[in-house]
Amino acid sequence: MDKAYIKVLYQPNLENPILVAGLPGLGNVGIMVARLLTEHIHAKLFAELYSPVLPDYTRTDENGLCSLLCFRFFTSEENRRLLILIGDAQPPAEDISAYYEICGDILDFVSKIGCKFIITVDGVPVTYAQRVIYVAGTSKRTAEKYALMGAKVYTNGKIIGIPGLLLGLAKIRGISGICLLSPILDLISDQEATFNAYKFLRKILGSGSENKSLQ
Amino acid sequence: MDKAYIKVLYQPNLENPILVAGLPGLGNVGIMVARLLTEHIHAKLFAELYSPVLPDYTRTDENGLCSLLCFRFFTSEENRRLLILIGDAQPPAEDISAYYEICGDILDFVSKIGCKFIITVDGVPVTYAQRVIYVAGTSKRTAEKYALMGAKVYTNGKIIGIPGLLLGLAKIRGISGICLLSPILDLISDQEATFNAYKFLRKILGSGSENKSLQ
Amino acid sequence: MDKAYIKVLYQPNLENPILVAGLPGLGNVGIMVARLLTEHIHAKLFAELYSPVLPDYTRTDENGLCSLLCFRFFTSEENRRLLILIGDAQPPAEDISAYYEICGDILDFVSKIGCKFIITVDGVPVTYAQRVIYVAGTSKRTAEKYALMGAKVYTNGKIIGIPGLLLGLAKIRGISGICLLSPILDLISDQEATFNAYKFLRKILGSGSENKSLQ
Amino acid sequence: MDKAYIKVLYQPNLENPILVAGLPGLGNVGIMVARLLTEHIHAKLFAELYSPVLPDYTRTDENGLCSLLCFRFFTSEENRRLLILIGDAQPPAEDISAYYEICGDILDFVSKIGCKFIITVDGVPVTYAQRVIYVAGTSKRTAEKYALMGAKVYTNGKIIGIPGLLLGLAKIRGISGICLLSPILDLISDQEATFNAYKFLRKILGSGSENKSLQ
Repeated sequence: MDKAYIKVLYQPNLENPILVAGLPGLGNVGIMVARLLTEHIHAKLFAELYSPVLPDYTRTDENGLCSLLCFRFFTSEENRRLLILIGDAQPPAEDISAYYEICGDILDFVSKIGCKFIITVDGVPVTYAQRVIYVAGTSKRTAEKYALMGAKVYTNGKIIGIPGLLLGLAKIRGISGICLLSPILDLISDQEATFNAYKFLRKILGSGSENKSLQ
Repeated sequence: MDKAYIKVLYQPNLENPILVAGLPGLGNVGIMVARLLTEHIHAKLFAELYSPVLPDYTRTDENGLCSLLCFRFFTSEENRRLLILIGDAQPPAEDISAYYEICGDILDFVSKIGCKFIITVDGVPVTYAQRVIYVAGTSKRTAEKYALMGAKVYTNGKIIGIPGLLLGLAKIRGISGICLLSPILDLISDQEATFNAYKFLRKILGSGSENKSLQ
Repeated sequence: MDKAYIKVLYQPNLENPILVAGLPGLGNVGIMVARLLTEHIHAKLFAELYSPVLPDYTRTDENGLCSLLCFRFFTSEENRRLLILIGDAQPPAEDISAYYEICGDILDFVSKIGCKFIITVDGVPVTYAQRVIYVAGTSKRTAEKYALMGAKVYTNGKIIGIPGLLLGLAKIRGISGICLLSPILDLISDQEATFNAYKFLRKILGSGSENKSLQ
Repeated sequence: MDKAYIKVLYQPNLENPILVAGLPGLGNVGIMVARLLTEHIHAKLFAELYSPVLPDYTRTDENGLCSLLCFRFFTSEENRRLLILIGDAQPPAEDISAYYEICGDILDFVSKIGCKFIITVDGVPVTYAQRVIYVAGTSKRTAEKYALMGAKVYTNGKIIGIPGLLLGLAKIRGISGICLLSPILDLISDQEATFNAYKFLRKILGSGSENKSLQ
């Protein structure tokens, strides 16, 4: 295996879906938000992305069934405009090209199924409790729009790893998107930051009757 | 040399063979079990896999003959349903893609010669002596089956390196298999763990008159 | 994304342009000199080079707009014989192939638009203040020529990273060039070294009425 | 530049040449022996191999002329059966695939010009002065043959880096060869070990009137 392999379980019936991507990161915010959303819309697994840049071990579950680490894509019959990505792991920190490769693989796949807008969610470490959600976007106008909905523009910062790179690469492909960053005090697992990010995400996803306003 | 090269010494006469893979790992269990089995069935070397991800030195033997490190495949006239793999080395720990690459190379080769079932063998470090053999499988049913033969299901664990990755990659290709893990107290070379694993392996290999029950 | 991607904003009207390349390096001399020159000739951005060997984060600006790190190419209506490259970052120090790859990508692009001469600018650490500019070239004659204009030949040294490698790779493609090295005392940002290098660069760029003498 | 590039200065008139390869290594023995041989037969540079796995800097000479690091091939009108390789540098130690890649590139090139036998030369660290030359070969018979000429068979050892890997890779391509290892006390530059290795090399090169006996 020298490049990514995507196992498609079934072809979902999507309409210009928005991708919500939750990846392992700071405070585990991204993954937990994506899981909450998955449960909320009763989304089902429809594709798995395997890649040689993900860690080289397999996990066994409670039945002794072993599986490679992968990135999972979910969608729901209830909401044909949402596509959710949950990643098991990020590539090793020192392998920069791996980050570009896996983000390119994700974009190849989601743009083929019609995705034109991406929302990544991550934590951002702070030194005192804050309830604000920061937003950065692939255009000034996009960032401003979500600022008007209650987020604070994330100015002069860095967005590290897949949550940032996915957006940066989307932009040069002509795909729009935003990154929501929730301030965290706990680097491992920050429940409150997760809940704040989830609430804001639900607010913006519900803002247009057909989510059209997002694009 | 930028990818694996397989030198086939002769074409063996195999019938849906099971692959038993012993690789350098914890307690040296995998390699020692594979060597015992090779001797038991009088298996002969029929192919060598060379790869640019294996260490960059050559060894010389007692005659001054120098050879690259490689993975060796053995088979026997006595048992046309067994294929044994013994590996000289694993890739460097930090080169994750290398693990995916070499496992893919192994699977390409063995599936071309009809292999549909894989058994990897490794040690698993424990803190007190245990005689049990743990088993994980590419399906819940497979793991259960070997549990019924006396193994203990390896739940909620990790299988690191080639023994785990080979199984994980086999699974997404539709090849079944199990990993047998023997508890070790000695990380370098654990004879007793090796013997226990070998005994269990012989038991399951002998369980079907033609090994059919394995598949 | 597994290789460089160049986004061309518009096709500039160039005539055998000279490339002046300023990259992150010692004393930040290269980038600062390239920026001064860009302002001086009112050069405008016309192309961006994105590469999977550049760092794996995105930056956000004062408007929350996020962008990948990249190498930017500038040119000016005022001077159709100048092409300026400003790089955001160098690849990680331990990834040697990445340096060859990105230098090759730069040379592919600039040679396609007719560039036949390259000037790289960097700092060189010294232990006491010096006002000299060192020069190395892709031929003995080239180095000598700029020595006659006031530079000192950079003998028996090393030019590390993109400023050196770009020149070395240009040479084997039949493209000529020089590297200007300005002695620095401050490794992070040396203003005086930058000013000295910029003055010398302006001198040699202005030396031919049509810059022809450079080639 | 993403793979090796060989610049051929002229086509030499060779007859089944033997390659003598001197690479940076222990005690600098390999390079010094290859240089002595180059001077002795008045060999001239005829090809240069550039590779993205060699260090990412350029050197400048006493005239300010800058050049990439490379591997140089020499041959002589006086002896059409000798081909000499002198390498500027080895790839970084942790980049194992780089070693396989550059050795493959060397073998591709020399086998295309008819080379069927390879002699690599290196130092081997010892703790007390020894005048012996160790030999390892691509076959038991080859090693024995040079043992009869006065070398000692290098048993149960490792030959690290290009001197070993080049031989190991040659073997699986059906090219024969030996490695001469001269015991060194000085890891940086061992003159006496160099001289001993050179003397033995001259002896075996002179042993056949047309070097035929080597093959």
